Amino acid sequence: MSNKFVYFFGNKTADGNGTMKQLLGGKGAGLAEMTRIGLPVPAGFTITTEVCDLYYKNNKNYPDGLEAEVLANIDKLEKTIGKKLGDANDPLLVSVRSGAAISMPGMMETILNLGLNDKSVEGLAKKTGNRRFAYDAYRRFIMMYGSTAMGIDREKFDDIFEDVKNTKTRARLNIAAGKKVGDTDTNEAELEEVVAQFKVLYKKELGEDFPQDPTKQLWGAIGAVFGSWMADKAITYRKVENIKGVVGTAVNVMQMVFGNMGETSGTGVCFTRDPSSGENVFYGEYLVNAQGEDVVAGIRTPIKLSDFEAANPPAYKQLVDVRNTLEKNFKDMQDMEFTVEEGKLYMLQCRTGKRTPMAAFKMAVDMVNEGLITKEEAILRIKDRDIEGIFYPIIDSSEKDSLKKAFLVSGIGAVPGAAAGRIALNVKNAEKMAANGDKVILVRKETSPEDVGGMHVASGILTATGGKTSHAAVVARGWGKCCIVGCEALKIDYEAKTVAVGETVLKEGDFITLNGSSGDVYNGLLKLVQPELPESYTTIMKWVDEIRKIQVRTNADTPYDAKKAVELGAEGIGLCRTEHMFFDTEERILAIREMIVADTVEKRVKALDKLLPFQRDDFKGIFEAMDGKPVIIRLIDPPLHEFVPHTEAEQKQLADKIGIPFDTVRLRVNQLHEANPMLGHRGCRLAITYPEILDMQVRAIIEAACIVKKAGKSVAPEIMIPLIIDDKEFKLLEKRARGVADTVIKEQGADVKYMVGTMIEVPRAALRANKIAETADFFSFGTNDLTQMTLGMSRDDAGKFLPDYVDERKAAVFMADPFQSLDQDGVGELLRIAIEKGRSTNPNLKLGICGEHGGDPATIKFVAGLGLNYVSCSPFRVPIARLSLAQYEVEKNKK
Amino acid sequence: MSNKFVYFFGNKTADGNGTMKQLLGGKGAGLAEMTRIGLPVPAGFTITTEVCDLYYKNNKNYPDGLEAEVLANIDKLEKTIGKKLGDANDPLLVSVRSGAAISMPGMMETILNLGLNDKSVEGLAKKTGNRRFAYDAYRRFIMMYGSTAMGIDREKFDDIFEDVKNTKTRARLNIAAGKKVGDTDTNEAELEEVVAQFKVLYKKELGEDFPQDPTKQLWGAIGAVFGSWMADKAITYRKVENIKGVVGTAVNVMQMVFGNMGETSGTGVCFTRDPSSGENVFYGEYLVNAQGEDVVAGIRTPIKLSDFEAANPPAYKQLVDVRNTLEKNFKDMQDMEFTVEEGKLYMLQCRTGKRTPMAAFKMAVDMVNEGLITKEEAILRIKDRDIEGIFYPIIDSSEKDSLKKAFLVSGIGAVPGAAAGRIALNVKNAEKMAANGDKVILVRKETSPEDVGGMHVASGILTATGGKTSHAAVVARGWGKCCIVGCEALKIDYEAKTVAVGETVLKEGDFITLNGSSGDVYNGLLKLVQPELPESYTTIMKWVDEIRKIQVRTNADTPYDAKKAVELGAEGIGLCRTEHMFFDTEERILAIREMIVADTVEKRVKALDKLLPFQRDDFKGIFEAMDGKPVIIRLIDPPLHEFVPHTEAEQKQLADKIGIPFDTVRLRVNQLHEANPMLGHRGCRLAITYPEILDMQVRAIIEAACIVKKAGKSVAPEIMIPLIIDDKEFKLLEKRARGVADTVIKEQGADVKYMVGTMIEVPRAALRANKIAETADFFSFGTNDLTQMTLGMSRDDAGKFLPDYVDERKAAVFMADPFQSLDQDGVGELLRIAIEKGRSTNPNLKLGICGEHGGDPATIKFVAGLGLNYVSCSPFRVPIARLSLAQYEVEKNKK
Repeated sequence: MSNKFVYFFGNKTADGNGTMKQLLGGKGAGLAEMTRIGLPVPAGFTITTEVCDLYYKNNKNYPDGLEAEVLANIDKLEKTIGKKLGDANDPLLVSVRSGAAISMPGMMETILNLGLNDKSVEGLAKKTGNRRFAYDAYRRFIMMYGSTAMGIDREKFDDIFEDVKNTKTRARLNIAAGKKVGDTDTNEAELEEVVAQFKVLYKKELGEDFPQDPTKQLWGAIGAVFGSWMADKAITYRKVENIKGVVGTAVNVMQMVFGNMGETSGTGVCFTRDPSSGENVFYGEYLVNAQGEDVVAGIRTPIKLSDFEAANPPAYKQLVDVRNTLEKNFKDMQDMEFTVEEGKLYMLQCRTGKRTPMAAFKMAVDMVNEGLITKEEAILRIKDRDIEGIFYPIIDSSEKDSLKKAFLVSGIGAVPGAAAGRIALNVKNAEKMAANGDKVILVRKETSPEDVGGMHVASGILTATGGKTSHAAVVARGWGKCCIVGCEALKIDYEAKTVAVGETVLKEGDFITLNGSSGDVYNGLLKLVQPELPESYTTIMKWVDEIRKIQVRTNADTPYDAKKAVELGAEGIGLCRTEHMFFDTEERILAIREMIVADTVEKRVKALDKLLPFQRDDFKGIFEAMDGKPVIIRLIDPPLHEFVPHTEAEQKQLADKIGIPFDTVRLRVNQLHEANPMLGHRGCRLAITYPEILDMQVRAIIEAACIVKKAGKSVAPEIMIPLIIDDKEFKLLEKRARGVADTVIKEQGADVKYMVGTMIEVPRAALRANKIAETADFFSFGTNDLTQMTLGMSRDDAGKFLPDYVDERKAAVFMADPFQSLDQDGVGELLRIAIEKGRSTNPNLKLGICGEHGGDPATIKFVAGLGLNYVSCSPFRVPIARLSLAQYEVEKNKK
Repeated sequence: MSNKFVYFFGNKTADGNGTMKQLLGGKGAGLAEMTRIGLPVPAGFTITTEVCDLYYKNNKNYPDGLEAEVLANIDKLEKTIGKKLGDANDPLLVSVRSGAAISMPGMMETILNLGLNDKSVEGLAKKTGNRRFAYDAYRRFIMMYGSTAMGIDREKFDDIFEDVKNTKTRARLNIAAGKKVGDTDTNEAELEEVVAQFKVLYKKELGEDFPQDPTKQLWGAIGAVFGSWMADKAITYRKVENIKGVVGTAVNVMQMVFGNMGETSGTGVCFTRDPSSGENVFYGEYLVNAQGEDVVAGIRTPIKLSDFEAANPPAYKQLVDVRNTLEKNFKDMQDMEFTVEEGKLYMLQCRTGKRTPMAAFKMAVDMVNEGLITKEEAILRIKDRDIEGIFYPIIDSSEKDSLKKAFLVSGIGAVPGAAAGRIALNVKNAEKMAANGDKVILVRKETSPEDVGGMHVASGILTATGGKTSHAAVVARGWGKCCIVGCEALKIDYEAKTVAVGETVLKEGDFITLNGSSGDVYNGLLKLVQPELPESYTTIMKWVDEIRKIQVRTNADTPYDAKKAVELGAEGIGLCRTEHMFFDTEERILAIREMIVADTVEKRVKALDKLLPFQRDDFKGIFEAMDGKPVIIRLIDPPLHEFVPHTEAEQKQLADKIGIPFDTVRLRVNQLHEANPMLGHRGCRLAITYPEILDMQVRAIIEAACIVKKAGKSVAPEIMIPLIIDDKEFKLLEKRARGVADTVIKEQGADVKYMVGTMIEVPRAALRANKIAETADFFSFGTNDLTQMTLGMSRDDAGKFLPDYVDERKAAVFMADPFQSLDQDGVGELLRIAIEKGRSTNPNLKLGICGEHGGDPATIKFVAGLGLNYVSCSPFRVPIARLSLAQYEVEKNKK
């Protein structure tokens, strides 16, 4: 931890630079870097994120020495600019903004115009020659400060302002009763009146006068920024976005510049390239005569950059220069906020811009082609969610003819891709519908940070106001989630729970379809399909496969899934579960049930004989689909009670069908009940008790392999024995399996090579890995069960307490749900032990991971570091696994 | 593995010696040693236990070279004795006996008189001048060989013999129809007839003639001995006795000597000291004119040694000399088998004798006093079951007056102690009654190896025949289980299921009481009490405590148990469970239920406030009982559903009592249901969700400690947080617990020191022990749950498959039930990891073990080796733990 708390920037020099995001936050680092490379940035200083951390660690007290450092920097700022805070003639005004290492749009509070008081407001009036402007700024400041820093209900300020407008302004301008009075309609006197009333409100609410001392104002604002770090909406955002390890927010104090000083002033947000398509075109929005916050809030619809160029060519030219400098400097697409004050451009922020998945691929490939970055850097630019996003659906061409009839309205396509689902008008309903398994489109006038939960569960987002840089657009883009904004023809009635466009009135729960690429909204549920993958995706994935060294397999139980996974790049099957196959048809489930209720080995074998041809056909299909790629088939794993009927009616039916007494069936089903089935009679324990099940399955696998081999295709079956805890147990079953397999190969006269290995999914197996590896050809880490047992947490039951274990305000044991992203400290340690022990006795041991974690990028990189031979995941996660493994190699080489 | 398969003994020299039990078996080693030290032992040789091991490892084939070695030894034996196997004039006869490293009485088959055939039988007749004797020997041999080695039903031989006796003998001697014809009534011709018929039977059964070649006979006998190693009854015995790691049986081939050659011949079994009382007196039994097997089988009741002395003073004198030599040589009580052949003594076997618990203590102390052994050796002589046995009950003195009335009959008191329970007449019924929770007395005419299972579950054993060295007596003595034998007045009718003594007829299921010390049997259920402990126990335990270095604590939840444990030597409480206390009274269970159904923190706190005074009182009682000794109190651990009522009626009652709707109660109970409660919402997870429970419990503990301290006693409370998986979780709760504790101490103004630690019972906790130890004062290994999770085995569900995991014929993963004796390879490895990690960050960390394993000697020695500070076990296992820890130190120093 450094002992410097405050970093100054201004006059083309800065204490910090662009690499110091962790310490200065993204905004602070960007401001420092822009200052250093000579861009027009108002001067200011950044209080580090470490101060925020210390503040919370120390019961919300600032660290010693902070105050002196802040005061010294104010002094330096005043000297740099030549103005003083609170000065009665020409006061320095500052903005106070938050900024963490990771961008959290709209999450943190901002206070503008700080430094105004009853005296300095007159100084500002004098200096600008615009008393109305000065009082408008003062009004805004008191409201922001009072609500944001001091917690007064914002509506109370709004009510006062509305009241003055609706009485004094309306009367003075003689505005009709039905017409709205605008903020800009107010005059100097009315704003003075508003300020006076605001100060009365402030005193009434807080019991003390609105602070006139600018230093007191500044500390209040700093406290508000730090306070917002632990506000519920900030915590929710970090949770939803899975942001961890960020210690706090920085505070940026910067000289105010004004975009609301008339027609040659304004404020804007722009991107160095198009964040939606990825095209190398300058892209942004500008609001004439406005303060910065107005663009992001999406209250007024801004103009395009081309219109800005037409309206103010010199300012636009300055901006284009900045764009070129920034891309060259950062070698990535930048997202910038700027203000034009009476024709002069000021940069208020720059950061790496969020982009759609499509844009991420395009920019990465373009930048390699432009020589801006290397292939390796390009690979690091792609996120796993970009890959997910690129597979997002579009409206099927078969709907072409319906499109016209279904067309409802057009808005601004903020995030491409399509989504279809039921309308939800608030977060609660969206979450409820999603929990019911419905696809949801969240429809709001505008979104705010409070809506993040509902946005997360929705398939698509539609707002009536806002532009491409509004809250809804920015958040949805980060998720690659279809989003249409600024759809102003939409009349949303939250009370009546309706959404109307002209004559058409839709109710909450009705279906709509969004095309996020065009911005079109359709009535009803249109058919969606997967889009064609862009060229840039193919290019990136080619680079990915060149760089990665570890194999990617898939978890697939059917030939269909197997084929799908191979298309997506799978190089084998890491887990083929055999039990799902038993549910496939009435005949199969009957045979397995007959096997289970059998009370002699003979009857059991008879039932198993019926299952054999089914299983053999299943495996044949899978071997054909995989065409010589290795296929790990796991022998039956779940407890038998999962296969038997549990209602009396079904049990009676079963008894009838297989011709045994109902009581026998019922008794057997009752016998199968277990207190903790997770730790019960399952996995290879079934094979210990009923070795004939293993015999049947191994025979089916090897017969299928022989048949496919004899038909001219390659096969590479790998038999996996689940739930092993000991070498003696493994050797017993492995020997039996090899016995059956060798017999079948001899019978069939086919030259089939096979392997026998085990899942490592019980802690004891990891601890005994050296012994088990003596005769095992491979280990596959079954991290689902291994997590349950290592943590002593049943996944089915953890819902009641696991959230507290991921919540940073509670136990905070895990960075993420340990059933989704591997618990590296605990389960990961067992993996490390098992790998070391396993390889010590069998250097040729093949190692892999299957289960949910095999598709999680953090887990993939972690296990790659442990030296696994492959990861296995569900088919649709295969490209993500390929990317993660390439990123692992690039990151490793960087170290 | 040696490459010598056969060890010769004879002529005062031997290839082996008394230390080679593992290789030669107990019998073989004893014979070699006795030969070396000059005792009269018939010559012979021993085929090693390794041959048995190789035989089974090699699909029941003998190792190469065995045959040649056996033949060479036969040759040597013939030369040593000067007789030849199968000789037509003066044949060598041999016995073939089994003998493993650990004595398994009656378990292994024996074949006598081997070498007899149609020619040599005449040679024997000639040499002994007793043709009847020769044919009697031949008859016995064909029967033993045919049944034991060749598997012909023994009854078929018996039928033939009975038939000859009942026709020819009966007619010849004119014996009345109601009277039994004895074996000795037969004459030479009749026995010749029996032999002839036996040979016909043999050929009919096996399709080949009875082998005339003695070498062929010998290989058949050797095969029978090896075959018996894997007979069901042998496996059952090893299972019941928990005998593991013994590779096989040896085969002893030895010259036959004959105890059935008239009145100056005989056979006997004796002990160098009294195996029941431990007194230093010569003790044994002798059967005149009998073969060796007759004594052990308990068919005829033998005479005492004093009568033997009177009957045959010179033979007795030889035996006394042997006794003195043997005790000096082995420095322990020996159990010997001998035969007197026409006045000359031959030793057939010696081994360390089994003894009662009382005798074990007395002999150990006596031998130290006699200078025969050291205190350390004395400690190693005591087994855990000796300690258990010494606490076995006696009939209460309050029953003194009832004794006369209840007296039924007297037998031979074979194993002291008393037992009372229901009569069971066979193994099946004994096991059934025991499973129902009944105390059982197994009553049999005589017992055989097939009865071992029923003997094991019985509280006491009563037989109508046999002496103190009969099967029943020997087996029961090994277990320290009350046993009366030779109770000849007992008429047992297995068909009618009755036991009669004179007029009194008892039915199976009726109660009887045994006094194993006196041999008296009583009608009905008499009151039993704990006996006074003998002086020798106190002496041994004093030595034990001097030698051991590791503390012994107890698991106790009540002041009563705590006091009891202190009496038995406990030095603290290692586990005080708080949850049982909640069930103590109606009031308490109501309060805990009210707490559980509470839907607000306020209501929960209100219910907890009701529980506080109860808990405080509980802890106060325990602190007082422990008087300053450390007391680990575990915070609430089980899932809450264990506390709530599950029937509708009870739920309604609860709803009424606490005044909330029934539906609320039902809903809450249903919510508490878990798929795998073992891995669910329990342990410290409850405190994470409901920290107010922790607050209440810590307050109760520390308030109680303060009150006791202020009343002038010492207190040492140690608060234990269960089910921890991570340091962050532990620190959160530990900090909260210390906060409450410090507040209470301040409030109470008492100077109480306390500790806060955790149970290590989830694999992840072991893996994260270094982090957790940073702020934990102690770890207590909760090996019950740790075993369940490490093995992935629910103790409640393991019944279906765990037996296969302990069965040496199946998976054979564990040497013993891993829930009773710690799985050292798996769970033990986690302990090792946790201890190393824990001490690495906290060298002062106190380490202990609680749970079932804490009372298991093998586990205790294992964890002592890991460096634990204490073990904790149930009160009655405390002396065993003390002994085991002393033995650990002695064994460590020996290495």
